Amino acid sequence: MIDKLIGKIENTGAPIVVGLDPMMKYIPAHIKKAAFDQFGETLEGAAEAIWQYNKGIVDAVCDLIPAVKPQIAMYEQFGIPGLVAFKKTVDYCHEKGLVVIADVKRGDIGSTSEAYAVAHLGKVSVGEKSYAPFDEDFATVNPYLGSDGIKPFINVCNECDKGIFVLVKTSNPSSGEFQDVMAGGKHMFETVGEMVRDWGEESMGTAYSNVGAVVGATYPEQGKILRQIMPKTFILVPGYGAQGGKGADLVHFFNKDGLGAIINSSRGIIAAYMQEKYASYGSENYADASRAAVIDMREDIASALKSR
Amino acid sequence: MIDKLIGKIENTGAPIVVGLDPMMKYIPAHIKKAAFDQFGETLEGAAEAIWQYNKGIVDAVCDLIPAVKPQIAMYEQFGIPGLVAFKKTVDYCHEKGLVVIADVKRGDIGSTSEAYAVAHLGKVSVGEKSYAPFDEDFATVNPYLGSDGIKPFINVCNECDKGIFVLVKTSNPSSGEFQDVMAGGKHMFETVGEMVRDWGEESMGTAYSNVGAVVGATYPEQGKILRQIMPKTFILVPGYGAQGGKGADLVHFFNKDGLGAIINSSRGIIAAYMQEKYASYGSENYADASRAAVIDMREDIASALKSR
Repeated sequence: MIDKLIGKIENTGAPIVVGLDPMMKYIPAHIKKAAFDQFGETLEGAAEAIWQYNKGIVDAVCDLIPAVKPQIAMYEQFGIPGLVAFKKTVDYCHEKGLVVIADVKRGDIGSTSEAYAVAHLGKVSVGEKSYAPFDEDFATVNPYLGSDGIKPFINVCNECDKGIFVLVKTSNPSSGEFQDVMAGGKHMFETVGEMVRDWGEESMGTAYSNVGAVVGATYPEQGKILRQIMPKTFILVPGYGAQGGKGADLVHFFNKDGLGAIINSSRGIIAAYMQEKYASYGSENYADASRAAVIDMREDIASALKSR
Repeated sequence: MIDKLIGKIENTGAPIVVGLDPMMKYIPAHIKKAAFDQFGETLEGAAEAIWQYNKGIVDAVCDLIPAVKPQIAMYEQFGIPGLVAFKKTVDYCHEKGLVVIADVKRGDIGSTSEAYAVAHLGKVSVGEKSYAPFDEDFATVNPYLGSDGIKPFINVCNECDKGIFVLVKTSNPSSGEFQDVMAGGKHMFETVGEMVRDWGEESMGTAYSNVGAVVGATYPEQGKILRQIMPKTFILVPGYGAQGGKGADLVHFFNKDGLGAIINSSRGIIAAYMQEKYASYGSENYADASRAAVIDMREDIASALKSR
């Protein structure tokens, strides 16, 4: 699956993933009104608003980008109807040819991790039949439980040609509390990075592994270190834009081949119309504002990479 | 919520939580047949089998125990229908007066953790209305992202009188890869334990905090250390029975007041009929076998506590 993602990055010239993290406050009033008129102010109404909002954005940006990253928490908070909207979004993005990175941050042990892997990337057996329940392309995974928690995901990646991104150094201010702890002369995130590199050997694509890493744009120095520890690991980089990461912070996440990283922006794209810079589009044309924001982000990254 | 859980433990004399982790291979043939006859070998059929299986167990053991712990991965692997069965199980357990500990191991940052907290423990706003989407009583949470990931859960615990159990030292063989790393003269799990203790101050019940910890029965020595680090923290202890933990391993997880821990058994209870010891019940009477296994577990723990 990593080869497919890389092919799409090369075709679009955009190492960009758009985070589909729909919060109610981002959704334009006209979309909410239509959804509530039809379903009332219910979980179903919220789910319909999310789905229509996502569809507008996906339609507007799908030719520009290789991938989307729906954050399942934003759907799970609306219960079963929210998760139905999540699944509709995944399927629609596939129809539009996008790679879907499910930001689920799952992680457990043994048969439980296997169940999560099956849920999101694999197939589950029911009697003589089998089904792909959520059928995303990549999932984000939490490493705190160790290899027992990761190996079942790698097995499913190998069986079904899928991939994972393991949390290594997250973009949030308090990520250092555990991830930066020094032990044996190195930080915890370095130890995790070494494990990710080793796990990656078990599921290689052509040049990069199907086992990737999450490293926040807000920590460029740590990104530089991790880039060297994990040369064949693709890095999913959150924290660009709204969280404070800039194009210039990103250059060290990439290898000399111009590959090796994909940068996520969520709010900065999907709620672009709420920023002063794109306010002239108006909320009715929120999706056009998202398209303009993707183009600007592509330029920001390209010029940062050119001037390194 | 921790006071409610403690009250139920005292009333039942059983510091036991039954893990409702239904795997298809545990479900008796007659239940699967009835479900597949009605819904076919589909995700809906699997979900119906899970639901009927759970209902039988809950009916058979609900007067003996304070709480259940459904593992959401086992439902999520059957997609949306599986999650509908999860929600039906949660609601049914509430009807039967049980505390529901959702084993979801969620964890993210900021607004995303808030969304997970709302999904499982809180209320979500839709226009002028609000809904409790999954409405469990406790959720398990992964600490790898630090305070940013935990605080939103604590806020929801305080608003809605709920609780969490934070992963500290998990029961699996590879839990030591990151959790046992030595830094500054202590293990990572001790550092996490200290944070859990401090977070717990922000949501105290009468004697214990609504912020609990997960520490595996398979690591009794670490349990002893953590019991001292976190005196007011309730410990959820997985790994008893099928994973190898025994009654005698558990005594150090309890405080001198006889409280402070609740022991989980999943397979050992819900699939008791598959063990030689309870085979005479037969698969038709699987729920009676589960009841017998709960009673035996209660005795095992009580006698271990008596002889300490």
